[in-house]
Amino acid sequence: MIPEITEKLLQAKKDKGLSFTDLESIVGRDEVWIAAVFYRQASASPEEAKKIAEALELGPDVVASLIEYPVKGLGPIVPTDPLIYRFYEIMQVYGMPLKSVIHEKFGDGIMSAIDFTLDVEKEEDPKGDRVKITMSGKFLPYKKW
Amino acid sequence: MIPEITEKLLQAKKDKGLSFTDLESIVGRDEVWIAAVFYRQASASPEEAKKIAEALELGPDVVASLIEYPVKGLGPIVPTDPLIYRFYEIMQVYGMPLKSVIHEKFGDGIMSAIDFTLDVEKEEDPKGDRVKITMSGKFLPYKKW
Amino acid sequence: MIPEITEKLLQAKKDKGLSFTDLESIVGRDEVWIAAVFYRQASASPEEAKKIAEALELGPDVVASLIEYPVKGLGPIVPTDPLIYRFYEIMQVYGMPLKSVIHEKFGDGIMSAIDFTLDVEKEEDPKGDRVKITMSGKFLPYKKW
Amino acid sequence: MIPEITEKLLQAKKDKGLSFTDLESIVGRDEVWIAAVFYRQASASPEEAKKIAEALELGPDVVASLIEYPVKGLGPIVPTDPLIYRFYEIMQVYGMPLKSVIHEKFGDGIMSAIDFTLDVEKEEDPKGDRVKITMSGKFLPYKKW
Amino acid sequence: MIPEITEKLLQAKKDKGLSFTDLESIVGRDEVWIAAVFYRQASASPEEAKKIAEALELGPDVVASLIEYPVKGLGPIVPTDPLIYRFYEIMQVYGMPLKSVIHEKFGDGIMSAIDFTLDVEKEEDPKGDRVKITMSGKFLPYKKW
Amino acid sequence: MIPEITEKLLQAKKDKGLSFTDLESIVGRDEVWIAAVFYRQASASPEEAKKIAEALELGPDVVASLIEYPVKGLGPIVPTDPLIYRFYEIMQVYGMPLKSVIHEKFGDGIMSAIDFTLDVEKEEDPKGDRVKITMSGKFLPYKKW
Amino acid sequence: MIPEITEKLLQAKKDKGLSFTDLESIVGRDEVWIAAVFYRQASASPEEAKKIAEALELGPDVVASLIEYPVKGLGPIVPTDPLIYRFYEIMQVYGMPLKSVIHEKFGDGIMSAIDFTLDVEKEEDPKGDRVKITMSGKFLPYKKW
Amino acid sequence: MIPEITEKLLQAKKDKGLSFTDLESIVGRDEVWIAAVFYRQASASPEEAKKIAEALELGPDVVASLIEYPVKGLGPIVPTDPLIYRFYEIMQVYGMPLKSVIHEKFGDGIMSAIDFTLDVEKEEDPKGDRVKITMSGKFLPYKKW
Amino acid sequence: MIPEITEKLLQAKKDKGLSFTDLESIVGRDEVWIAAVFYRQASASPEEAKKIAEALELGPDVVASLIEYPVKGLGPIVPTDPLIYRFYEIMQVYGMPLKSVIHEKFGDGIMSAIDFTLDVEKEEDPKGDRVKITMSGKFLPYKKW
Amino acid sequence: MIPEITEKLLQAKKDKGLSFTDLESIVGRDEVWIAAVFYRQASASPEEAKKIAEALELGPDVVASLIEYPVKGLGPIVPTDPLIYRFYEIMQVYGMPLKSVIHEKFGDGIMSAIDFTLDVEKEEDPKGDRVKITMSGKFLPYKKW
Repeated sequence: MIPEITEKLLQAKKDKGLSFTDLESIVGRDEVWIAAVFYRQASASPEEAKKIAEALELGPDVVASLIEYPVKGLGPIVPTDPLIYRFYEIMQVYGMPLKSVIHEKFGDGIMSAIDFTLDVEKEEDPKGDRVKITMSGKFLPYKKW
Repeated sequence: MIPEITEKLLQAKKDKGLSFTDLESIVGRDEVWIAAVFYRQASASPEEAKKIAEALELGPDVVASLIEYPVKGLGPIVPTDPLIYRFYEIMQVYGMPLKSVIHEKFGDGIMSAIDFTLDVEKEEDPKGDRVKITMSGKFLPYKKW
Repeated sequence: MIPEITEKLLQAKKDKGLSFTDLESIVGRDEVWIAAVFYRQASASPEEAKKIAEALELGPDVVASLIEYPVKGLGPIVPTDPLIYRFYEIMQVYGMPLKSVIHEKFGDGIMSAIDFTLDVEKEEDPKGDRVKITMSGKFLPYKKW
Repeated sequence: MIPEITEKLLQAKKDKGLSFTDLESIVGRDEVWIAAVFYRQASASPEEAKKIAEALELGPDVVASLIEYPVKGLGPIVPTDPLIYRFYEIMQVYGMPLKSVIHEKFGDGIMSAIDFTLDVEKEEDPKGDRVKITMSGKFLPYKKW
Repeated sequence: MIPEITEKLLQAKKDKGLSFTDLESIVGRDEVWIAAVFYRQASASPEEAKKIAEALELGPDVVASLIEYPVKGLGPIVPTDPLIYRFYEIMQVYGMPLKSVIHEKFGDGIMSAIDFTLDVEKEEDPKGDRVKITMSGKFLPYKKW
Repeated sequence: MIPEITEKLLQAKKDKGLSFTDLESIVGRDEVWIAAVFYRQASASPEEAKKIAEALELGPDVVASLIEYPVKGLGPIVPTDPLIYRFYEIMQVYGMPLKSVIHEKFGDGIMSAIDFTLDVEKEEDPKGDRVKITMSGKFLPYKKW
Repeated sequence: MIPEITEKLLQAKKDKGLSFTDLESIVGRDEVWIAAVFYRQASASPEEAKKIAEALELGPDVVASLIEYPVKGLGPIVPTDPLIYRFYEIMQVYGMPLKSVIHEKFGDGIMSAIDFTLDVEKEEDPKGDRVKITMSGKFLPYKKW
Repeated sequence: MIPEITEKLLQAKKDKGLSFTDLESIVGRDEVWIAAVFYRQASASPEEAKKIAEALELGPDVVASLIEYPVKGLGPIVPTDPLIYRFYEIMQVYGMPLKSVIHEKFGDGIMSAIDFTLDVEKEEDPKGDRVKITMSGKFLPYKKW
Repeated sequence: MIPEITEKLLQAKKDKGLSFTDLESIVGRDEVWIAAVFYRQASASPEEAKKIAEALELGPDVVASLIEYPVKGLGPIVPTDPLIYRFYEIMQVYGMPLKSVIHEKFGDGIMSAIDFTLDVEKEEDPKGDRVKITMSGKFLPYKKW
Repeated sequence: MIPEITEKLLQAKKDKGLSFTDLESIVGRDEVWIAAVFYRQASASPEEAKKIAEALELGPDVVASLIEYPVKGLGPIVPTDPLIYRFYEIMQVYGMPLKSVIHEKFGDGIMSAIDFTLDVEKEEDPKGDRVKITMSGKFLPYKKW
């Protein structure tokens, strides 16, 4: 599930003591997107790849790898990791309600997962901190022809 | 996939010309949560159920149905509907990056899908409106024993 | 696999002796799109639905059905019908080559299946007629954030 | 998913700075077909294989590999890569409508995926470039006996 | 698995005391093909459908059903019926050897399952009768483009 | 899918310029059966194994391998290779018709896939050569007890 | 999973107060085989069917049903019922050892599941009664050709 | 599917010219159970492991391996090897009849697959030798609480 | 997933205002076991069935249903209901650790799911109440033979 | 299924002659949790990891591995190992009854598998020792919003 290049990047990041939040200010891109580049789910531009490699003191072969267009996805059909599974569960439980509400607000179409951003924040809360995830995807109406 | 009671509720809602947003102000709960009650993915309190039934001019059997604790989920393993599939794709593509970033911010644990809220907004944009989805789930650290 | 409303529409179309090509000129939309409306894979506007219903001498309940936003897809995971399976096979055999060539021409991103049109033509050929299928989908580059 | 020989070919192509379109004029075959040979989904003739190997300055073992008849397909049942998945989605959503329209135009039978060509073009468009895919497959009527 | 029309046809055939071999001489088509029409895996011409309906003393609705182009296949992925499973096993065990021998005799391509006939004979044998199945499918070479 | 010993045998066969038909006369067994031995789907006697090894100038370890009783089958559940898939499709489309006709001719029971032979021939035809496959399996009636 | 005719037979058997062991002496066949006829996994001769129907005071339609050649199997891929699952587990755990021992005793081939009998006995034992199951299947050696 | 230790044991057994029946008298355990130890489906005591290792002239590391408690099962969900598949088929075809007869004789409960023995015998028969398999499992009644 | 008899029982229980805990004292059996009888996962004795039917004022047909030996299990392979899924997750995450610890304490064998009891308690806790589940299953050592 | 680090830990534990119960007193954590750390299903703190490594005389790379947040789960969908399968069976058979009883005691929500402990005890019993498993998970009520 985890490509070799990813393990190399994660190891270098650990050795350097850098967090994804640190990389966010170095690369000028969101930490989730940078993590997606690490896991070969997104492709960087040569400049972005160079910034990442330099921050981690890795060589030009890493740059070359990070600008390639990866084959994305590839996990098991139903994930068993509890953190990832919860997103599957949200889709199972709230998929139809989301469909109803989005259609009501926008008409027939979908939220793009390509023209799309994803943000993670920590909300401190005395009753227990909360994970806040914000997705923003372009609405794509079904074309008729 | 769609229970009979759901079809009855959706039909009544259409006949009354009510949107989920309208129901939001009537019931005092978020529209996504109300849609989840419609699709039998969430259970209402007797008061909430009564407000929904009254707004739709439906009888006490509907109230009784809406306060039951439903068997949740039950869609196909990989959804084929494009709108719902995109949430599956987000999990496939961004599952590992999300895991990395959440663990970095919070330690080992998960975002709860139970102590959890889900919000849909329309962001108007001249280049094409955007669907904004906000999830907020309590972080649950792994207990050790 | 085939909803009741679809069977009703197909029966009426047969009784009227109309082809999808005939409906193309009546509705002012492509025959494939109209077939997609028949099979509840696309939603019509009230005007389009009315034209279809009138051509088939069907009532306002059919109009109401055709403007609903359907839950799409829902066939078996791997189709067994030989005509439909060939499209699955094309994806299995030519998926990676298509990915390579599209990425080379456009960069990282996808061909939209939503801002998308699909056309079927008959190419007469003395060695055996050919089915010509033309797909046109907007290229969606991966957004970075 | 990606055989070793494919990686070797892709690396050499990158090192030479050649695109599939460049190879199209060198080999005298369409770029998609050449990409299919790269991914071991199609077999080349000895002459075609030699032209590819020469253009990439690769040896006779590559020629021998490219003329073999490969075991084709072999990806995961439902692809997770978003670009490839969209072709799966097109089959899920438009499979039945395509079946209806093709049967109406040709009778009972299928579009061959063997006596078949596949073409990718870039359509420039101010609202966003489009991917145009043209498939042409011989119609095979069901034989009766 | 077995459509209603099939059960009606099988019942009428039993009531009339007709075998598929009897129908072979009445319809002028092979018994296996006729059985495929019964199970809605093949479509008859109006003349053929009429002959079948007349032989079974069934009405014009049966004729209409038999000339429709059916959605084919649709059994479980791995059949559990022992007679049908053996054909699955033959594919599992002899699939690669068949591929090798066919490629050696014909080059890259496939045996068509559309331009295809299938024959069943009983070979009497003192050590136990044998089922002889003869398949004849047009060889389709892969087209290059 | 392809064991190492198979690759070794195929390579030696290619180096020697031998076809399966050549091996048929050398070994005194049908070419399909010999291909099945190559793919470790059938076990040879020591004499047969020696003849194969000698023809390919391979050593006694190959002989030892070919006389072992292999674990058979083991391909993916639904094959993606188009040539092999067509046999799956034949089972999906003609499985029930074959069951009906075989039961009608023989009673309740099956065609053995063990006491079974399989033959491939090339039928030259001006409209396109045909693949002729002949299967002969002992009929096994269900025992009652 | 359980056909209507099976429920009818089981009900009548309960009403008559008959056990399968009672039916064994009435029909002259083993109780397991009779249960297989009840569950439409085996077909009876007209005489056997008549004896069963008479013992249960059921009519000629039941006789007609029991002599039909059923589509066999059809349970879920991995059974969830604990009693039936244990047989799946025995195959998972002891499948390879059984293969080894049978091949050692008989050579390459299989135990027939068609020319096959199955017997259940109760072995009384002070430490807990035991279920004794005896299977006897003809060994079928692989035919060579 | 076959662990390394198993291959080592099988090779040594072949080199020594020992059958599982020979090992039965050496170890003092049934040949099927010994084969289960070979395939890491059962764990031996130190004494039993030493006897097996000595008979095969293998070292103490083999002894250590054989006394470990293995992770059992792990074959493909539906086996493709014909010999093993027949046991799957027996479960599919006779699972419900076995359930009925066992419940009738013993009440609600199961045959244990743990407090369980399995025996294979060769029954010589002029019409073809038969494989006789005897299973004996403790009946476990469902506990109520 | 939920049989008709179950719905009838649950409705009557709701109408009577009885909890499973109430039934526990009426029937003299644990509430979980009684719920298992309701869902047709366990069979009652005639006396137990009569007590349940009387408490719910249901007739003798219900008694007859509850004493039958049900086909157990039968949910979807991976449950989607979040409450039930958590038990699947516990097996996925803690399955191997449990195996290790149980083997260390008991040797090779299993915890019986038949000679087995299951208890649910509510543990009040100021930081949030806890669900306490106690399972007790007889250890079954693997028999050797 | 078993990562390299796990095998290393298990080997060292065997070499040292330590049980998980021994480690319980050394580490100050429950043996099941420690086994979960071994199998990379739980993450240790640096102190806990150091205690484990010291007890097993393993180096700092093991400490580094044990404090990582693992990808959890990852076994086959339906486990084949009999000990682990029984937990799957308990979920299949008692999943709905547990759901009913928990909902009755607590309302709509779930038992957490994260804020969760798991304990294994040996209950000596003259009729056969019993495995006692105690689970304690925080009840999480569904949040409304």
